[in-house]
Amino acid sequence: MKLLFLILIAPLISYSQTNDSIFLRKIYNTALSKGEAYEDLRELCKTIGARISGSAEAAMAVQWGEQKMKSYGFDTVYLQEVKVPHWERGTKEAGWIRTSEGKMLKVNLLALGGSIGTNGLLEGEIVAFNHMDELKKASKSQVQGKIVFLNQAMNEQQIETFRAYGGCYTIRGNGAVEASKLGAKAVIIRSLGLAIDEHPHTGSMHYADSIPKIPAAALSTQDAEILAQILKKQKANFVFEMDCRDYPDVVSYNVIAEIKGSKFPNQIITMGGHLDSWDTGEGAHDDGAGIMHCLEALRILKVLNYKPINTLRCVFFMNEENGNRGGETYATWSKSRGEIQLTALESDRGGFSPRGFEVDGSEKYVTFLQSLEKHFEPYDLSIFRPGYGGVDISPLKRSFEGIPLFGFAVDSQRYFDFHHAPSDVFENVNKRELELGCAAIGAFIYLLDRNYSIFLP
Amino acid sequence: MKLLFLILIAPLISYSQTNDSIFLRKIYNTALSKGEAYEDLRELCKTIGARISGSAEAAMAVQWGEQKMKSYGFDTVYLQEVKVPHWERGTKEAGWIRTSEGKMLKVNLLALGGSIGTNGLLEGEIVAFNHMDELKKASKSQVQGKIVFLNQAMNEQQIETFRAYGGCYTIRGNGAVEASKLGAKAVIIRSLGLAIDEHPHTGSMHYADSIPKIPAAALSTQDAEILAQILKKQKANFVFEMDCRDYPDVVSYNVIAEIKGSKFPNQIITMGGHLDSWDTGEGAHDDGAGIMHCLEALRILKVLNYKPINTLRCVFFMNEENGNRGGETYATWSKSRGEIQLTALESDRGGFSPRGFEVDGSEKYVTFLQSLEKHFEPYDLSIFRPGYGGVDISPLKRSFEGIPLFGFAVDSQRYFDFHHAPSDVFENVNKRELELGCAAIGAFIYLLDRNYSIFLP
Repeated sequence: MKLLFLILIAPLISYSQTNDSIFLRKIYNTALSKGEAYEDLRELCKTIGARISGSAEAAMAVQWGEQKMKSYGFDTVYLQEVKVPHWERGTKEAGWIRTSEGKMLKVNLLALGGSIGTNGLLEGEIVAFNHMDELKKASKSQVQGKIVFLNQAMNEQQIETFRAYGGCYTIRGNGAVEASKLGAKAVIIRSLGLAIDEHPHTGSMHYADSIPKIPAAALSTQDAEILAQILKKQKANFVFEMDCRDYPDVVSYNVIAEIKGSKFPNQIITMGGHLDSWDTGEGAHDDGAGIMHCLEALRILKVLNYKPINTLRCVFFMNEENGNRGGETYATWSKSRGEIQLTALESDRGGFSPRGFEVDGSEKYVTFLQSLEKHFEPYDLSIFRPGYGGVDISPLKRSFEGIPLFGFAVDSQRYFDFHHAPSDVFENVNKRELELGCAAIGAFIYLLDRNYSIFLP
Repeated sequence: MKLLFLILIAPLISYSQTNDSIFLRKIYNTALSKGEAYEDLRELCKTIGARISGSAEAAMAVQWGEQKMKSYGFDTVYLQEVKVPHWERGTKEAGWIRTSEGKMLKVNLLALGGSIGTNGLLEGEIVAFNHMDELKKASKSQVQGKIVFLNQAMNEQQIETFRAYGGCYTIRGNGAVEASKLGAKAVIIRSLGLAIDEHPHTGSMHYADSIPKIPAAALSTQDAEILAQILKKQKANFVFEMDCRDYPDVVSYNVIAEIKGSKFPNQIITMGGHLDSWDTGEGAHDDGAGIMHCLEALRILKVLNYKPINTLRCVFFMNEENGNRGGETYATWSKSRGEIQLTALESDRGGFSPRGFEVDGSEKYVTFLQSLEKHFEPYDLSIFRPGYGGVDISPLKRSFEGIPLFGFAVDSQRYFDFHHAPSDVFENVNKRELELGCAAIGAFIYLLDRNYSIFLP
């Protein structure tokens, strides 16, 4: 019986696999020979550039995204209102090391996102810690009235740079609170980057309700190294000015395009990245590349006249960087409309050479993901394993119990050279690497759609 | 019996695997935290730069390599004499398109390596072919007295860029011969590169004994596209001058370092890349990165006090680019000394993010290679398959029957943006990507040494 079944079914499987294989090849060929992602990214980076939530650039990016999606003729394109925080760097931002010998050295610094300003020039003696744990163990008398310098470096021995980032994230996110608890008047951190260079890296930080707010900034890794060297020999002060501050929330939008499901329009497969960026560089890798990956994937499926079984939805999320309001709004909205979110995919690790996909989901989905690896052998993808989906899509877990979330994995080695830094510009994205990412996501979304039944609740 | 054997042997296997695993981690940690490859590459690129065989720079590079190897305290460091060809670009190199309307456009071009000069300004009507096969099918009357323009593009739909290069190589290698057969007075080719940019890419070409030699040059892909557009609308001439030419052979050297085998000093495991480069850019990826990979691998094994079973030999081969005299000399020399060459590894695909290893050898060695994959799982290497070794080590096959040759495989997407072009400079090599390559090779050579018995004749 089983043998007979296999004999009967084998040609069908083989036919279907061949069809998949041919279709995947078409997706790749289109991305590599008739791709639009690279020029779209150039447009976003060069005509708009950095686009932090609440800024004029973010508003223009919303318009740009909507127009671009409409130009591709998807079934539906619409905006989804999101109230976002509005923090501005201001116009004053400069810092110096003043050694005990009276020498002044200018440093490259960026206020951390959400920091208060210094209210004019702020100067204080520097007290340095090589690790967050050292600061936590310090006494008030060590820190009181001083400027804390957190010189914790990302661990270069981690092969996956995201792990190194995760291990160091706390100095940026929690440095101000921990320093302020001990009476510090400001905190400066070593930028979260693996390269030793002149670019400071900003990023989100937070304050706690009962702890006084103090200004927080990141020095370039190069300046952090110089400062550490100075402090080995003598005391030093840090002097800086920043006039960054919060403004009232602003109305902004997620930007959404869909190809309606031919059989199950209420069953949704979501893919996306974030449209906002930090207010430095051009948000090219983070996350211009990610939204181009998804937009181009949907465009290619349309160009190839693919009629999806379920609705394929591409979302340019707003405000991933400092609030995730777009992701939160989207999950709540989708649930309230009675949609069935089958699964979601996020691309937010840069436009580098693709390596594969990770899944945040139950064992069943890990096995499913691994079953897809064979389709990608011709394209040299090898990462098909449990892992992380993405920040924007993570609120879907709250709204849709058990939903598996996929994360697009690319080569991570260069990502933190550019992440949240002035160097995150279009020129640092490679055309082929970006295009291969678009193709991989197009192919993956196609396979998710074809195998949708595994995602049914 | 078998079961008992397994019970007895299992802890040993496990112990040995754990030891391997710990040692590999040490190799990676050393490369990533105490690496010298990046600064060594900077030195080679910035104090010497491009170093074509026979040039003063190549001679200085030999001295630099010997000093560097000696500074690391290997058991033996020596030079191996190699007679190399000596071709020079000269000082005149310029080209223009002259349209039938009389408009002149300057192009970026590079003489192909080995080309004759133009003997003053050379001008001729352009006859264009989009593929080598078109030229081969052309008649004498179409080509006679004209300048052939071979505008065959690398196939961007190939995922492995080396395949795309292989498919297009003939326009550079054989273009002059094929054009001259039909009476052309010169040949210009579209550069072998996937990006559309302003950099021309040089590389080797050849002449045939009975066919008149004609000048050969490569235009940047951007200029090739412009020229193709012009030719759609009107005829055009090409005008250029080059004073490149051959000189008599020059004495040069392979540069060699060894750690002697503690048990079998006459059994050799060779690893290497090539010290020479083309005479443009700085030979950073091609093949500065490759020789740094191997030098650093050997240095790390020494620093970690590893006592190899067999002799580990790092060779900086001379003259890979236009003759492979270094590789030929080495294979003959090794054979003549009665050495047992167990196997060899080459790194000559750039300093990009490592992907794994290929083997050019019998099925036994493919299986062996695949058995090594597990060791590299923590380091995200996934290519362990049949493939190519490298040009420098290929003559070993002639001298040592059945010898398996390993090639180090890195991400290939960006390689042909830099290959043989002015853009192949130090700044385009990423520190971490280079260091991960050094570690991968160090680990691989260690595993080859530990498993040497499989290579015994």
